[in-house]
Amino acid sequence: MLLTLQAELQLIEEVLVAEGAPQARAEVQAHWLAEADLRGRHSHGIQRLPVIVERMRRGHIDPGAEPAVSWSSPAAARVDGRRGFGPHVGSVAMLAASERAHETGVALAAVHDANHLGIMAPYAELAADAGLIGLALTTSEALVHPWGGVPAMLGTNPLAIAVPATPDPFVLDMATSAVSMGLVLAHLHRGEPLDEGWALDADGRPTTNPAAVRAISPFGGAKGYGLALAIELLVAATTGTALGAAVTGTLDVETVCTKGDLFLCVDTAALGAPDMVASLSSYLDELRSTPAQPGTDGVAIPGDHARERRRRSLEVGIELPDAVWEQIEALRSEAGTAA
Amino acid sequence: MLLTLQAELQLIEEVLVAEGAPQARAEVQAHWLAEADLRGRHSHGIQRLPVIVERMRRGHIDPGAEPAVSWSSPAAARVDGRRGFGPHVGSVAMLAASERAHETGVALAAVHDANHLGIMAPYAELAADAGLIGLALTTSEALVHPWGGVPAMLGTNPLAIAVPATPDPFVLDMATSAVSMGLVLAHLHRGEPLDEGWALDADGRPTTNPAAVRAISPFGGAKGYGLALAIELLVAATTGTALGAAVTGTLDVETVCTKGDLFLCVDTAALGAPDMVASLSSYLDELRSTPAQPGTDGVAIPGDHARERRRRSLEVGIELPDAVWEQIEALRSEAGTAA
Repeated sequence: MLLTLQAELQLIEEVLVAEGAPQARAEVQAHWLAEADLRGRHSHGIQRLPVIVERMRRGHIDPGAEPAVSWSSPAAARVDGRRGFGPHVGSVAMLAASERAHETGVALAAVHDANHLGIMAPYAELAADAGLIGLALTTSEALVHPWGGVPAMLGTNPLAIAVPATPDPFVLDMATSAVSMGLVLAHLHRGEPLDEGWALDADGRPTTNPAAVRAISPFGGAKGYGLALAIELLVAATTGTALGAAVTGTLDVETVCTKGDLFLCVDTAALGAPDMVASLSSYLDELRSTPAQPGTDGVAIPGDHARERRRRSLEVGIELPDAVWEQIEALRSEAGTAA
Repeated sequence: MLLTLQAELQLIEEVLVAEGAPQARAEVQAHWLAEADLRGRHSHGIQRLPVIVERMRRGHIDPGAEPAVSWSSPAAARVDGRRGFGPHVGSVAMLAASERAHETGVALAAVHDANHLGIMAPYAELAADAGLIGLALTTSEALVHPWGGVPAMLGTNPLAIAVPATPDPFVLDMATSAVSMGLVLAHLHRGEPLDEGWALDADGRPTTNPAAVRAISPFGGAKGYGLALAIELLVAATTGTALGAAVTGTLDVETVCTKGDLFLCVDTAALGAPDMVASLSSYLDELRSTPAQPGTDGVAIPGDHARERRRRSLEVGIELPDAVWEQIEALRSEAGTAA
């Protein structure tokens, strides 16, 4: 199935509104899912809609909730997401930090009780669009084993960092796991072995058999583990949310969402730094044009591939697997919104 | 040669004072070098003293310089290091951010024109000692190739993150390179091959021959590269300092130091977050006691090994290779401080 962006947005909005979401909230949630599909990040795209709808039906998502932003100190806000949609709460939090950073130089917003954020890059991009450095961190269900340990005790704990540059910002968006559970499952469904280093089995032995996987490995060995753990702690310490196996509600439909989200913005102009956009941009261009390592496609700047993929999707449409499309059609019928 | 901490501190202080450093500045610099040696991080220990002294003689280090801290906005300071010792400027900057964060919730200090910071963990620990989250980033000479590229265009760009916990804080201190150039050189001197994945030769081919190394690889493949590049950009954008090959003066004696340093503190109490120290500490204990992966020593919490090594060094003394000791003795004679 090939969808235009407009068709995907309308479809998601119709379903969410039929399930009780205010139109404005449905639009933000639809935008976040569609952005993931546009960039080829289908694991965070429209295929999440059935879980979102079921969580609305069970009361784990309050579709009309307005987050409460409390500035208990001049540069740091605590944000109660009140079980609202992740993208609405997250973008309110990032914009609040971004506006405040114009005055204070740096500002952060620490979010609890919001639902799944979805794709992380657009939050950091909100800051970059305002000429600021943006950073977004979030915790997630324990799927990753600590380095040297067997059971999964860490989230895939992604981070996004955007730094303004021309013509486009630097946008890093990465999980701290070697791979996503979605990729492991895709290999399982296709009957293909995993790469070495992706995962452990129940005895803690590295495995390439997707059916035997009990925990995903952190990326980058002990250092990647250190970073994943730092994110687990930074988010919990600033938001007062759950840790390790107590993090629930971003993949399942059974429980409220207990993870946290941390957004941080820096206004380098307010800080008094010289304008570095031209220097950063020419350094990034220098990197793009460095001699390629034999056997590789050369150097990519984080954000470039996603931007190119997005541009192509806007031209040719968003391709969805039949299985995903059937689930969405079933949702539409249930919601009484089928054409 | 086996030194007590007291002997190492006194030795460094005597040399630095003889070279024109005020006693108080010499003490901070000595503390930072000795902390590295205590923790077994000898590449950042007393063996750096000859380069520091030569940089003082050439005017690249102004040993009496007092950094200028400018709060151009309430939560963000620009710090002019005025060619001072890295540890003095860095600790002034971190303490300034830390004091300010008590009022503003989050605060940062962006440093230009300071010399080499040395070991990073103690800066983050300064924040943790005050009950705050601390983060320290710095850039360094281009020794690391971008993922997919041949030449070295990124620093080893280390980061340190400390989060308060009991009985000891979480303290991550890691470079974003696979290994340090010091380790490559140590293999060269011992005639031992490198591990796979550490470095590239002049043609961009992975090499295990230490003599053929032209660039160190980032840790963790494309993701580690993304993080190394993010640090390069974050530091330059906030401090107005150099990028890539234009970063000089942390290893050499020829040039002024053009890198930058970024320090950030978060006061979770000012932010209004619940006190999470007990939860974080019990989660860390849970990690420490998880079943070990077969063939490993089990799970370590970042900071634990360094703390244990430090404790042992305080008991048995700091062991220095003869070659390092001879260099230090030569410096003492030159400085006229030999006993």
